[in-house]
This record gives sequence, structure tokens and C-alpha cells, in this order.
Amino acid sequence: MMQNKVLIANRGEIAVRIIRACKEMGIATVAVYSQADKDSLHVKLADEAVCIGPTSSKDSYLNIKSILSAAISTGSTLIHPGYGFLSENSKFSQMVKECKIKFIGPNHKVIDMMGNKTRARDIAKQADIPVVPGSEGVIETPEEGLKVASKIGYPVLIKASSGGGGRGMRVVNEEKEFKKAFETASLEAENCFGDKTVYVEKLIENPRHIEIQIIADQHGNVVHLGERDCSIQRRKQKVIEEAPSPFIDEELRKKIGDAAVKISKHVKYENAGTVEFITDKEGNFYFIEMNTRLQVEHPVTELVTGVDLVKEQIRVANGKKLSFKQKDIKIEGHAIECRINAEDPEQNFMPSPGKINGLLLPGGLGVRIDTFIYNDYSVVPYYDSMIGKLIVHAKTRKEAIRRMRRSLEEFIIDGIKTNIEFQYVIMHDPEYVRGNYDTGFVENFLKKANG
Amino acid sequence: MMQNKVLIANRGEIAVRIIRACKEMGIATVAVYSQADKDSLHVKLADEAVCIGPTSSKDSYLNIKSILSAAISTGSTLIHPGYGFLSENSKFSQMVKECKIKFIGPNHKVIDMMGNKTRARDIAKQADIPVVPGSEGVIETPEEGLKVASKIGYPVLIKASSGGGGRGMRVVNEEKEFKKAFETASLEAENCFGDKTVYVEKLIENPRHIEIQIIADQHGNVVHLGERDCSIQRRKQKVIEEAPSPFIDEELRKKIGDAAVKISKHVKYENAGTVEFITDKEGNFYFIEMNTRLQVEHPVTELVTGVDLVKEQIRVANGKKLSFKQKDIKIEGHAIECRINAEDPEQNFMPSPGKINGLLLPGGLGVRIDTFIYNDYSVVPYYDSMIGKLIVHAKTRKEAIRRMRRSLEEFIIDGIKTNIEFQYVIMHDPEYVRGNYDTGFVENFLKKANG
Repeated sequence: MMQNKVLIANRGEIAVRIIRACKEMGIATVAVYSQADKDSLHVKLADEAVCIGPTSSKDSYLNIKSILSAAISTGSTLIHPGYGFLSENSKFSQMVKECKIKFIGPNHKVIDMMGNKTRARDIAKQADIPVVPGSEGVIETPEEGLKVASKIGYPVLIKASSGGGGRGMRVVNEEKEFKKAFETASLEAENCFGDKTVYVEKLIENPRHIEIQIIADQHGNVVHLGERDCSIQRRKQKVIEEAPSPFIDEELRKKIGDAAVKISKHVKYENAGTVEFITDKEGNFYFIEMNTRLQVEHPVTELVTGVDLVKEQIRVANGKKLSFKQKDIKIEGHAIECRINAEDPEQNFMPSPGKINGLLLPGGLGVRIDTFIYNDYSVVPYYDSMIGKLIVHAKTRKEAIRRMRRSLEEFIIDGIKTNIEFQYVIMHDPEYVRGNYDTGFVENFLKKANG
Repeated sequence: MMQNKVLIANRGEIAVRIIRACKEMGIATVAVYSQADKDSLHVKLADEAVCIGPTSSKDSYLNIKSILSAAISTGSTLIHPGYGFLSENSKFSQMVKECKIKFIGPNHKVIDMMGNKTRARDIAKQADIPVVPGSEGVIETPEEGLKVASKIGYPVLIKASSGGGGRGMRVVNEEKEFKKAFETASLEAENCFGDKTVYVEKLIENPRHIEIQIIADQHGNVVHLGERDCSIQRRKQKVIEEAPSPFIDEELRKKIGDAAVKISKHVKYENAGTVEFITDKEGNFYFIEMNTRLQVEHPVTELVTGVDLVKEQIRVANGKKLSFKQKDIKIEGHAIECRINAEDPEQNFMPSPGKINGLLLPGGLGVRIDTFIYNDYSVVPYYDSMIGKLIVHAKTRKEAIRRMRRSLEEFIIDGIKTNIEFQYVIMHDPEYVRGNYDTGFVENFLKKANG
């Protein structure tokens, strides 16, 4: 049998996370790094490390040729793309396969299918999964959009077909605002994604972002691992995630979970993926998109289900059957993740790179830390500002919140600004504590704080 | 209702552990510290901190008057003794109660009853719990001991009545060695414990040290939380502990667990305690002693049962009923704890205090760290050399061993010597990996390594 060797085409905490799983499976690891990341922890922990280019992402972590050449020269048999960077790039997935290397993720055709929001929406409809009422596919002209909007009723959203992270997106409250919003959204979509097409859908008020973790093997087995509630977002970037959602009961969990499995089976999905929904106050849920990769927030699912998602990803990428069935999955206790960012909440969350000259990590029962920082490490300014994740697990949501509070209290990162205190304050917000929040939470929270 | 406030009459990682539980319960904490410990993490984390004396344990952590005066002056309503120091001192427990403060542990009479090994043995026999065949109570003369020895058969052990940690203990393989061993053991017992009385029992060959965690409320409810296997010891000091024991099956677990509950009920035990047994190859088990306090190795039990033992201790000390019943306790997965000591395995495990000038803690899924050290902290030479505990939890024993290996690989403590590599090598020992070990493991392991 050929020895497995995994190249991790990523950096930061997720590279460390994947290396840890490989080590525990007895699989050799290859880190890749940009020149700016030579002191990063993932480089130190991997068995081998290859420099793939200069600082800029484009020339390193997005440099397909350089990464493939590192994989070939090290004899890597699998590539894990992590999240971000090339993780949802179907061309990369395809080229990996052409090099006779296993891509730890779905087939490139599935990435293509689910990566385009309008196509994904069509697929959901084919599979009989509820979607937010809206246009059938892209809208070519403002006039066409106006027709759809008056049919589904205002307020509506104009969204970029290839969009994400809130860019190329506009809320339209009444007819007269439509034309201008359409033009701005198209322009922004063109600039951000090189694809100006947009579509229109009904704006769901007070929505919650509920996503279902699924994992599928190459033998047609798909299992969902329950939901994560990721409604606590700032500018469409998740800030806090939890599992289970305080909003979802057993019945709704089963319904949404079944829908996620259904759409995954429909596209013959393989490996780990996340089916994202929004829900309204009445418990209606609507498919919004599928992320065809591991998510930042996967640890909360791991803690409540006991499944090591990265190990399972590697197993199924190697052709093995899933090591569990749907009936084996039980949601135990409650998990919360706070993303720890090198940023200054006092300065509009401006990134705050720099040297860490004092570090105390929280510990003890029910506390998990996924990070790549260490004392004396310099956080570089070139990539994402997330420097780690603090995840807690406890019997109940209330206990998990208290555990998160005491862990944030213990956590010291000197030398740079972080959002630790910001997270600490949210953990004390009465509406958060009650579980009574929607995706507008952080915006309202900041208004209150600044008002 | 009076506000709770817990004074922690201890130092190091266990003080930190208890403070964490209190914080999560919303209970105020008071740390006490010797002059040598002013920079210790437990002092920084507690809401208040009181210096209770100079460096020497006798004048600080064993100084009952000073601790009680700290408790009274801070308005503490409970005292948690941790382990070691005053934790099994019945006089302390009694004096705490006389100050109208709750002692988080059993009644002083129970501590007295179970603290003396010969008395504890008598109690076990009354409760119909198997004990190692041996003398009925203390042996006054070598002649009396010889009679017992020939009745139960050699090899036998001579043990100090008030002993612990292997001191005042002698193995006797044949009759002619008996007299001299008796005299040495008595002398050592007198020197170490101020009590020269000894007793004789049959030496169990290839014994495993199996202990049962119990917890009891003030309403007569006693629940056991399964066993810990603590057979990996060096000079009677535990080095690695795990739960469940690879040696124990469901049937034997129930038998030993029931025995532990029975003896606890027999003495009307309250709060957390550990009933220690040795087992032989045939699965016979014999009561050896009861520890009337929280153990160093309690985290492995917490990880496999999901019970937060310190929180439960505080709850029952406050008169609450146990929050679970025996049937609620399920053993999930496997947990292993490695004690991390500031010591030099190359120099006969000589303590290695000093300044930590580089620290990298392992993290990620299934890894728990309980420690009081941080970067730039100076480990003081005056107390126990244990500076932390690395505990892992996984689905299976094999996965737990692999997780422990990768965690030990990640763990860096610069500036002082530690046993991290020693633990790492044990984690690769074929007999350890097979679960095929007894209390002689470390001695044999060191012989192999040095031979």
C-alpha cells in the first residue's frame, strides 16, 4: 500500500488543525508557506515544508502551479485545501486530480455547480428544497428585476451571482430605489468577482443563519451532523458560532438536516460540505448556498457530535466508507466558538498586526484552542486577521456561555489589539444570552455601544 | 441568600482548576499563597488573594491558623482544600466547620476513619468488600507477623499504618527476611509519619492500580463514575492515568464500582472521594485505601463521563442533591493524562526548577491542559515538581494514545528540564500500547532503557 502524505495548501490555524489530524492518523504532512510565513507554526509542525512564493497570496497560497509542484516534488498523495484560498476553486481541484493526487474535497464539477449561487439555487429547486422566493436565474435588466420584485413583494435583495461576503449585494425597500441599486450591485459584482450578473430575491426579515454540516463518502452515503447557528456576523463575516442553535428544535433540525442531505445526494456530493440556510421567525427555512469545503466553525460540530471532521475527510477521500451512520449522530451538550482576530474594535475593527510579546492561553475542562500564534510570533498584515479560535463545550448553553466568559477573561495576548474584550462583552449581552438574535445582532449591538 | 465565596487552600494547577469552576458558577474566589508563590497564576486569576506565610509549606499551605484567618477576613463561605497539603487533615476539616465555613470534602470523622489504612481495611471488611489477605490490624512484634505471613503465604508486604507514597513499605519474599524488614519498615514509618505501627498483607503479583471515583451528596446518594487505571507509577507516584482501564470489562466495572459505592455508603461518605483497589491477573480486586479528596487525575474521569467534578463538589457541599443518578453515567471514549513534571529523567528525575523562557502549549480537538505555568514564570523549588497535566480524550484508546503523542510532540517548555520526552517514549512502548502493564511497568521500562 502506498504511504499517505498530505500536502496542506493553506496557512494559519486551519493548516495546524489539519496537520494535527494527520499526525494522529500516522500520515506524513507537507506544509507550504509564503516567504512572510516562514516562522508560522504550521511550518514548524509539519514533517516537511516548502516555500511556494513571495508574500502576496496571489503568488503563494493562490499559486496553483507552485503548490502542485511542491506536491509532486514531495510525493504527496493527497492535498487538503483548508478554507479560503483555493478551497473552492474547481480548476485547482481538477488539476490536482490530473496530477494523480487526491483532492480532499468534492469533485470539480460539484464545486462548479454549487459555487455559482444561481446554479446552486436551481439545483435546490430541482431537489425540492425551499429557496428564498426570487428571480429564476440571473436578471439581465432593471426592468426585468422590477417585475420580479413586484411579484414577490418588497423589501427585496439584489445579489451578485458569484458573490460572497456581502459584496455585490443591495437591499431595496421600494420600487423607486430599484434601478439605482441594480446598477450599483452589478458594478460592484463586476469589480469584485469579474462577473456582473445579479439576481433578485425576497429579503427575509430578522433572519438567522443556520447551516448544516454534511459529510459524504464515495459510496453514496451522506450524513448530516446537525446545525450551526452563525447569525452573529459583522459585515457578513461570522464572529461567533454555536451548535446546536438555540432557535432550532428536534423537529426543525430533522427537517433542515434532511433537506441538506437531499441536496447533497442530488449532486452526488463527496467529502465535507456545508449547506447554508436562512430561517425566519416562523421556522421557515430557505436554502441560500453550499460551501464545498471545511468551514472555519467546524469545531463546534466536532465538539457536540464527537466526530473528527478532518480525519473523516481524509478517510473518505481515500475511498473509505463513512465511519458512522445517521442514527449514530447524537448532539451532546452545547459548543460555542469565538473567532479571535488581530483587530482593533475601537478603530472600526482595523487589522492590528504586530509582534506578540505576552501570551496566556485559557485552558481546563471543555476549552479548545485552535491557533497558530505563540509568544514572540509576529502576526503578519498580509492575510486574514483571524489568529485563532476559542471553542468551549459544556452540558448546557448557559454553562457554555459561562465557560466562554471565564476563558476570555483568562486569555491574554499582549503587543497587538484583539477582539477578545469585544467577544467578552457580547457574551454578557442579554439578548445573546437569551439566544434571541438574528443576523443584524452585531450591527445593533455596535449601535447601542456607540450610541 | 448569602453569596458564596470559595477560599482555595492550595496552589498550582489544582488551585487554577478550582478557580475556573467557581468562575463558571459565578462564585467569588479567594486564593492563598506563600511568599514564593506571589507570581503564581492562581493568585492572578482569583478575585482576591491573601498571603498566608513564608515559603515553607509548614508555614503557609499547611498553616491552619493563617488559612482560617484569611477565610474569615475575606468572608469566605466555603474552603476547597484541593489535594495534598491539608486536604486529608481531619483537624483542618473540623476547624473549618467550627468557623461556620463549609469544608468541600467529607466530615472530619470520615477523614479520620478512612485516613488510617488499618482502620479503613477493617471498615472494608465490615462492608464485605474484599481486602488483600493479611493481618487483622497492626502487628506488634516480628513473631506475630511471621505467623500471619506463613498463614497467607509468601511473598508478603509489610506496610506502615499511616503510610503512603511507598514509604514505610517492605516486600518480604521468604521467612528469613522477615524480621529485618519488619524493623526497617517500623523505623521508616516512625520517621516519616510519626507512627511506627505496621501491618502485613499478601503481595499481589503483577497488580494493577484501579481506583473508582465516587461522589456523594448529603442526602445519602452515592454515584460512582467508573474507574481510572493508575498503574503507571514511579516510586509509587502516579505518572500516567487513564479511563477506562484497558483491563476492566463492563462486568468487572460494575462489581468494583458497586463495591466502592457500598463502602462509601457504609461510612456515610459525603463529597468526592476515590476508592483504591488493586487487581490481580484473574480480575480479583482488593480494597487498599480511600482518598477522601479530589485526585490529581480527576480530569480523565471528567472527560469520559462529562461530569465537572469540582462543580459537583461545590454543589453537594452546599447541600444540594447530586445532579445525576448512577444510570445517567455513561463512559464515552477514552482519556489519558500525562503528568508534566519539572524534573530531569536523565538525572534520576531530580527536580528541575527555574525560569521558563519559551512555552508552547499543545491544542486542538480533544486536548485539555491544566497548568499554572506561563512564559517567563519561574518554577519554584519548594513544592511538588508537577507543573501541569496534559489530558487527551478520543473515541478509542488507540486514538487517545496517538493524540497524546502528537500533543507531547507539540509541547515545548524551554528553560527547565521536564519529563515530556519520557512520557513520549512511554506512549510508544509496545506493552503500554497493548494495555499490558502493571504497577511494575515504569521500573521495568527504566531497566530496559538503562540496560
